[in-house]
Amino acid sequence: QVDADRLWQTIQGMGEIGKTPGGGSSRLALSDEDIEGRKEFLRWVSHEGCHYRTDVYGNIFVQRTGNDNSLKPVVLGSHLDTQPRGGKFDGVLGVLSGLEVIRVLNEHRVVTKRPIEIAVWTNEEGSRFSPAMSGSAAFAGLLSETDYRSSQDAEGNTLGECLDISGFKGDLLPNDIPIGCYLELHIEQGPILEERNIPVAVVNGVQGVLWLDIHFYGESAHAGPTPMANRKDALFAASDFINKFREETLKDKKDDARFTVGNLSVGHPSRNVVPSLTIVNVDIRHVNDIELERLEEKVHCLLKEMKEEHGVEVAVEIKWKMPVLKFNDNLLNVLSKAVSKCDVAPFMMMSGAGHDAANISRISPTAMLFVPSVNGISHNEREFTNKEHCALGAQALLNAVLDLANN
Amino acid sequence: QVDADRLWQTIQGMGEIGKTPGGGSSRLALSDEDIEGRKEFLRWVSHEGCHYRTDVYGNIFVQRTGNDNSLKPVVLGSHLDTQPRGGKFDGVLGVLSGLEVIRVLNEHRVVTKRPIEIAVWTNEEGSRFSPAMSGSAAFAGLLSETDYRSSQDAEGNTLGECLDISGFKGDLLPNDIPIGCYLELHIEQGPILEERNIPVAVVNGVQGVLWLDIHFYGESAHAGPTPMANRKDALFAASDFINKFREETLKDKKDDARFTVGNLSVGHPSRNVVPSLTIVNVDIRHVNDIELERLEEKVHCLLKEMKEEHGVEVAVEIKWKMPVLKFNDNLLNVLSKAVSKCDVAPFMMMSGAGHDAANISRISPTAMLFVPSVNGISHNEREFTNKEHCALGAQALLNAVLDLANN
Ligand SMILES: NC(=O)NCCC(=O)O
Ligand SMILES: NC(=O)NCCC(=O)O
Repeated sequence: QVDADRLWQTIQGMGEIGKTPGGGSSRLALSDEDIEGRKEFLRWVSHEGCHYRTDVYGNIFVQRTGNDNSLKPVVLGSHLDTQPRGGKFDGVLGVLSGLEVIRVLNEHRVVTKRPIEIAVWTNEEGSRFSPAMSGSAAFAGLLSETDYRSSQDAEGNTLGECLDISGFKGDLLPNDIPIGCYLELHIEQGPILEERNIPVAVVNGVQGVLWLDIHFYGESAHAGPTPMANRKDALFAASDFINKFREETLKDKKDDARFTVGNLSVGHPSRNVVPSLTIVNVDIRHVNDIELERLEEKVHCLLKEMKEEHGVEVAVEIKWKMPVLKFNDNLLNVLSKAVSKCDVAPFMMMSGAGHDAANISRISPTAMLFVPSVNGISHNEREFTNKEHCALGAQALLNAVLDLANN
Repeated sequence: QVDADRLWQTIQGMGEIGKTPGGGSSRLALSDEDIEGRKEFLRWVSHEGCHYRTDVYGNIFVQRTGNDNSLKPVVLGSHLDTQPRGGKFDGVLGVLSGLEVIRVLNEHRVVTKRPIEIAVWTNEEGSRFSPAMSGSAAFAGLLSETDYRSSQDAEGNTLGECLDISGFKGDLLPNDIPIGCYLELHIEQGPILEERNIPVAVVNGVQGVLWLDIHFYGESAHAGPTPMANRKDALFAASDFINKFREETLKDKKDDARFTVGNLSVGHPSRNVVPSLTIVNVDIRHVNDIELERLEEKVHCLLKEMKEEHGVEVAVEIKWKMPVLKFNDNLLNVLSKAVSKCDVAPFMMMSGAGHDAANISRISPTAMLFVPSVNGISHNEREFTNKEHCALGAQALLNAVLDLANN
């Protein structure tokens, strides 16, 4: 049995690193705080007698040996980086429930047939470096090392530079790290489980994502003497686009279309100057690939309208595109059984958020577990999951590991 | 007669300081470039045998003595600071045409009855420090020294700190610097003169301005799993407001209502996070005070709608409010005569932009001259005014000075 208090205290301990005024965490990928969080985690695993390895992408792998270490390990994982003002559970729960599994096995001196491994993936959140989940994407061969390393943060630092000085760049390549199967426990980050009073769920897939950077180019002009009719206002064009596309997503009858503009910035801003450049960072999602394609087309349609209506030029860059992904049926069965063993009726759902599991599912059997987020809140300092739910998720994970690592 | 080439070369010389890639100038108020521009100007005036004084606000005053220095001087002025990506003429023409007037008088050894003075006002543009025209506002007693000094730039530096290290903070108070009357030559920064083929105009007033900072407060949430209906998106609220208020200004039949959002910023931005804070910097203008009041009320009306529609909170801060101002009738006559002497039929117009003259008009007889802006473009690196028009403006100014300084 997992130790609910121990797991909870470990989560709170990680939350102390990069703690924010509002009670959340700020450990942007490869920032000092992220590096400190990784080091703290490695101190904890070294107490469990495990050593770690890192690959060329800065992903960390912590192994607990099994009886037959020539067998591919059961890998549990998630991430320790956070949003600029993130919560204490997103990613952290997946990594630290892996640690809790190892602690329980050590306590009871259980040796499994296969080795068990915890993976900590680099740059999952995607706030500092685009795309999100790039450490696992590079590992899965979905992103070249060059593209991975060249991604820049807002200050122009590349991920590669930050990785090189982090102390976490290793020599290993994905081929050096076999994966038998991959499991990830995560908080839901949405309202469904709480609404239905379900304490733990099996996740059968991840909705599709499209990330676009849209540049609107207008013409700067003086705010006072320039008649409205003479303007080419890059911000008016951007605002108009945001409104119209929002209306489009609100038409989705099941409320399945998702549209977010997480950032908008004006080039050389000055209050009394009509903006000549506005950049918007767009996030669009849908559980249905066909609908996601339709939304992408709609973006281009609307941008054409904006060009005509506002006299601006427009450039669109795709920063990330991930189709809807389905997890492994066999593992979904294993997880359903593991949940049943906790006396919970298995419930299956799609994930609204992207997860490293989505990338790893392309190279290995993969599935996930979710526990509820209070009020569905995440990417927010007030993100919260109850201690009991954290423990229940970890227990289901342990049940699944005992099943998979002994077969 | 003014020397068109000399004036032109002097303007180009100032344009070398803080030169931008697109052929404009970047000398933000009290930046290194602004300070360098002021020093260059003072080197030029010292060649003309003039010395300078500075007041506690960092405004510069350069005097050419007259026959009776107990008489109040004729003051000519404008500013040398620019927008982040500004033009070479905005402000510069007014200051350097003052220098050209002194050069012509020196060349011809003309001594006027009254002294002549050039004023260089601090922080006219208002892009680095709010409000605009704050050096002349403080001088005219419209802004307290505390408020003047405490204005912060985007990095949190105060104007006062920047002034103290600039070397341009003097001991003089406004009472130490009498003004007989004040004239300002400026580029129009709008399309009217060019459209009507008018080479120089007399400016009889300045339209009213309202600067607002609006904070929209939402709730951060994950871009993927959060249903659109559950969101409180601060950026959606801001975009919706911008669109609706823009539609409102477009209703103005004479196209006299002006609305600009020169900057919009998102707090702790991250693409996959619903924005919890969005700040917009608003500039609203009208030639009619009643209409300007109506627009201000409309802002509050719309913000109430936004609160209901988007579930956000809103806070509004007034950064600047200037009513419509009219210039001095007597000086308008003098300038009309001065323009007629250049064989141009006098044409009167209101200014669309704010100018230091608007503040000085509150404490002294004041009026302005405009010369055309090519394509009406200003606050833009491509801002341009023909050499002939610059010279014509300076000539009209000289004509007026000879009239006023000998009476
Ligand atoms: N789980 C999570 O917050 N992932 C970040 C990537 C995404 O935006 O879906
Ligand atoms: N002339 C000029 O550009 N003034 C700046 C202040 C304003 O925004 O009107």
